[in-house]
This record gives sequence, C-alpha cells and structure tokens, in this order.
Amino acid sequence: MKIALDGMGGDFAPANIVAGAIEAARAYPDTHLYLVGLESQLKAELRKHQTADISSRLEICHASQVVEMSDSGTDAVRRKKDSSISRAVDLVKTGEAVAVVSAGHTGAAVAACQIKLRNLPGVSRSGIACVMPTEKGLFLLMDAGANADSDPEDLIGYAIMGSVYAREVLGCPHPKVGLLSNGTEAGKGNNLTKACYPLLQNAPIAFHGNVEGHDLFDGTVDVVVCDGFVGNIVLKTSECLARNMMDWIKKELSANPKRQIGALLSYNAFRSIKRKTNTDEYGGMPLLGVNGICIKSHGNATPKAIKNAIRVAREAVLHQVNAKITAEMSRHHETQSSQTPPQPAAT
Amino acid sequence: MKIALDGMGGDFAPANIVAGAIEAARAYPDTHLYLVGLESQLKAELRKHQTADISSRLEICHASQVVEMSDSGTDAVRRKKDSSISRAVDLVKTGEAVAVVSAGHTGAAVAACQIKLRNLPGVSRSGIACVMPTEKGLFLLMDAGANADSDPEDLIGYAIMGSVYAREVLGCPHPKVGLLSNGTEAGKGNNLTKACYPLLQNAPIAFHGNVEGHDLFDGTVDVVVCDGFVGNIVLKTSECLARNMMDWIKKELSANPKRQIGALLSYNAFRSIKRKTNTDEYGGMPLLGVNGICIKSHGNATPKAIKNAIRVAREAVLHQVNAKITAEMSRHHETQSSQTPPQPAAT
Repeated sequence: MKIALDGMGGDFAPANIVAGAIEAARAYPDTHLYLVGLESQLKAELRKHQTADISSRLEICHASQVVEMSDSGTDAVRRKKDSSISRAVDLVKTGEAVAVVSAGHTGAAVAACQIKLRNLPGVSRSGIACVMPTEKGLFLLMDAGANADSDPEDLIGYAIMGSVYAREVLGCPHPKVGLLSNGTEAGKGNNLTKACYPLLQNAPIAFHGNVEGHDLFDGTVDVVVCDGFVGNIVLKTSECLARNMMDWIKKELSANPKRQIGALLSYNAFRSIKRKTNTDEYGGMPLLGVNGICIKSHGNATPKAIKNAIRVAREAVLHQVNAKITAEMSRHHETQSSQTPPQPAAT
Repeated sequence: MKIALDGMGGDFAPANIVAGAIEAARAYPDTHLYLVGLESQLKAELRKHQTADISSRLEICHASQVVEMSDSGTDAVRRKKDSSISRAVDLVKTGEAVAVVSAGHTGAAVAACQIKLRNLPGVSRSGIACVMPTEKGLFLLMDAGANADSDPEDLIGYAIMGSVYAREVLGCPHPKVGLLSNGTEAGKGNNLTKACYPLLQNAPIAFHGNVEGHDLFDGTVDVVVCDGFVGNIVLKTSECLARNMMDWIKKELSANPKRQIGALLSYNAFRSIKRKTNTDEYGGMPLLGVNGICIKSHGNATPKAIKNAIRVAREAVLHQVNAKITAEMSRHHETQSSQTPPQPAAT
C-alpha cells in the first residue's frame, strides 16, 4: 500500500515525520511510503536512522516549497504549486499513492484535497472526523475544523459520513448520531442546527436528537455533528483542559513529600489517564468526503502520532470507506428525491 | 440589601434554594431574602431548619406557577405570569429587590429579565458571563448561553460588558479580551467573528485578537467573547470533561491496593483540583446588560452554590456594575458616531 507523507508539515518536521515513517514502515511491511519535501533535509534526517531493512520502502519525492503557518490555506495551494502538501496530494490524484498524511497547515491540507481531489459523488462538503475518548469508548466529532461556515446539507453529509466511518473503522455496528446544540430539547439550537434537525430525522442514519456539551464524554452518542467552527473549538478546548488538568494534578502532587510518595504509588493510574487523553494515540483525523484518503495529524505530532496516522490511513483504505460513503450518499439522495413531490413544469 | 430568589427553580428546588438562602442570610447579615414560589412547599422546607436567628430576613412571596424544563423560555414568561421566576423578576422591576437569583430554566430566566427589565441604555443584547478557572486565575466567558444567534454588535457589547465585570468585580485592572475563533491568526473565523474582528479593534477595550480553544485555560486573556451557542457548548463541554477526568482518575486509583494507598496519601491534591473545577465555588453567572442584577445558578445547584450565587449578586450590586456598563456603552457609541463620517441628507 503506497502512502504519501507531507514531509515538511508540522512543528517538528521533517524530524518527526521521518522518524514516524520509519516506525510505520517497520510495523506495516506491505507499506511503501513517499516522503515528500525538500530532498536535502529529508535525506539528512534519514541518515540519522538505521534504515537498511526498510530503505526500499521509503522513497523521497522532492518538492521545493513549504507552506508556512502564516499562509492562507487556499492561497498556499494556488501559489505554492511545488509545496510538499500539494505534491503529496498530487500523488493521490495520479493514483501513485492511495492516501496522504500531513501534520502541517490544516487549511492548506484541506484546500489541496478539496481543490485537487474534489468531493466524492453526492458530497456537498468534506469535513474532518476526530476520534475522542469517552468513559466507555470513543466518539467521532465531525466537522472538527475543515469549514468554518456550513449549510444544513453539509451537516447531513457529516452525519452520514461519520456514521459510515464509525461503523466501518471504529467497529460500532449501529452508530447513534447526535446534533451538537445548546440544549437537548428538540427546539433548542441556533438557526443552523434548527434547520438541520428535521433533515437529520429523515436521513439514513440513527438520529438520537440534540446533544449538549454535558453529553459528549458520557458516550451518549457515537457520532457528534457540528459545523467546523464549533467542532474546532470543542476539540481544542477539550485538549487544552485535559492537558491543564494533568498539569494541575502534577503540580499539586509535588507540593509536599507525603503527596509525592502518594503520586509514586499511584503512578500507573495517571499513565492510564494520560494514554486515554493523549492525541498521539489516535494519530490522525480523516478528511471525509474527498475523492481520496487524507489523514490530518496534529501540528505537534510525535513520531508515534505519525505512525498512528499512517495506521488510520491504512484502516480507511482497507475498509473501503470512500466506496461506502458514496453508496450511503447515493441512498440519501434517492430517498430525498422520492420524498420530494413532483414539481409542476415551468410555464 | 434585598435579593429575590426563584424558590422553585432547579433540579433540587425548593430544598437546596431554601438551604442556600439560610446559609447566605447568616453569612451576609445586611441581606434580606425573598423566597418566591409555592408558599406551602417553601414553608415546609423552612420548617426543616433552625431559622429563629434569621427568620425576619427570610420572606416568602407566594407564586402559584412553576416553569418546567420542557417549557419554552419566552412562552413560559408570557403564559405563566404567576411563575416563581416571573414574580422574582417583578420584585426587581418594582424596586422591592435589587437582584434576582435563579437556578431554574435558563431560557425562562433570561426571557423574564429581557422582557420585564429591558436592556441597559446602549446595550443591544444581554449575555451570560461565566467565570472559569485557568492555571493562574480566572477568565470570563461571555455569552455562555443567553442567545443562540448573535450579531457582531452583540459581541462588541459582550466584550465591553465583560471587561467592566472583570475589572470591577474580578479585580483584573486591565482585562485583555480575546475573540473565540478556530485559530489565532487575524484572518481565521466564521462569518460572524470575521465581521466582529475590526469592530473589536475600535471598541473601548484591550483587544488581544483571536483566541482558540487551546488558549482558554492558559490565561492568555481575561475575557473570552463568543456567541451564546458556542459559549454554552464550551461551558458544558468543559464541565463534562473535568468531571469525567476526575471520575476516570478515581476509578484508576481504586484499581488495586497500591494505588489506593497512593490515593490516600495524595488525597488533598485531588481536593484542591476538585475545588478549582467545582462550579459550586463560582456560584452563579450574571446576565449582564439587563436593567437589573440577575444571577443564574446551575440547575443542579447545591445550597453552597446558591449561597455563592447570592454573594455574586451582592458583588454586582456593591460594585455598581450596571452604572459602569452604561457609562462604557455610552463611551463606545460616542466614539463610533465620531468615527462615522457625516452622511449626506436624504433628498
């Protein structure tokens, strides 16, 4: 399986990307990885590692430009035609790779995929699906930040695509979908969610109704649908709070010797929580809805996160997520047109 | 100082409201509390306590109706004219009380205040200000859920009112204001926040720029401005995650005897974190912008939360928050009109 990596994307690129690629190449012997970016830098990074056993499956593809965090997403794709993310997406477009993984500029990665790969048939807008932990397991938040402003039809698409992903990849046989709102009652919401609600009731998904912030980590639903502005804020707020709480606990536990001994004895408990809330474990977030597999990893991705993002890309390919999304979207549009009463011909 | 309590609002009303009122009456000897609601129930609750020392300052005002959580906010105010929340707000409107405290239906409390008390001069929309903890101290999130859909001018008002509250009540001399967005760069945002950004640059506040979820609990800014849909989701998501993380830790710490001993030794560390993340400590959220003081407490408010909500009401009154909001809003509108070039007369 050939996968393209944006070798220059992320706060610790190319070092962590190359190190993660090496881990993945060893873990998945059928994987061939394209390292896309500045050849000299990628070669220098590779030389820091022992790669004799996997060197035939690590292939550098030179790209002369790098997207900076200060670039606008769409502009970056239009102006920097030889950037690492553009070239990596090109490899998917031409069929040389089946998936692309990037820890770089989210807007640029989304724009490159949306512009170059286009949407799957029937999809109005692609969105980022983010896996998050609950008490009992996981839930999928979508859209976690691909599009700041959305139409009701976009959110219906997120609900359908999220359900497919939860079922096919996360192993949840009958995913329940919740619409993220400011209250659980059916009448609650803003203009967007109020317009969405009746459409979700008629979509080919198991619609639970509105969910609020209080329900997210309790496992009430398996897929949480919202626009990318709200989703991005929820994702980053949760990450920030989880990190801060662990820091506060660490600080409190080191406040005196008695607590320090207590902390030593209960060390494994914190490791387990840290693992649950560590984004590196989840690896990457698929951009669902584009005609190709694109996995977005965190800007501060560690080698482990990159390896896990490659795992996520493999899972999406192996479970034929895109074919199943296309089938579900087609089913949705058929149901819709059968529900629409025949229109009188224009006179 | 006379304060009206919605005696029937909240999951544990009237028990917790009455118990909280008793605590507050003892803590603040200059306070006279109106317990508004079903007289028989309130009397029965009072009889469960020893109140001889404060009974002259606990006055029952009968109201025959109760707003249910299934009622719509505006409808509840229009149809249930003799509800406890309506009658409590009436006491503020007629000047018999200086503030109202409710742990009941947020929509009904907001609607009752907006309809009966009206806005302060110059305020386009009132919003709920919520105090939240950071590493170093506190920040104010506004609007935490009064209005699901907002205009840019509403958010400018939230920024000005939030700054006044942070300065006057929270003791932050020069509050920095951040606009909650999906990225920190100036160009990031949805249609609403992009329209707000330049207006905030010209408002009489210390505008920091965009903040994202990652910045919230780091103390980057003192006031975080957003629409009430987003604010409500951020508030509830944070509460849910904090509660779940404490539960996960508790579960992990009781997994084996070694960890249990560790947990015993470090018990005070967890108490300190729990205190920091316990909404009861903050007590209540002021609805800023209405012509009166209204403090909204949590639906599951404990007696302690009610007592603290009464403290928050007292602080808002003693610091003359509304007079200062009116002055700042007037300054804002004067600056705006001086910046607007003279318009040609209509022909």
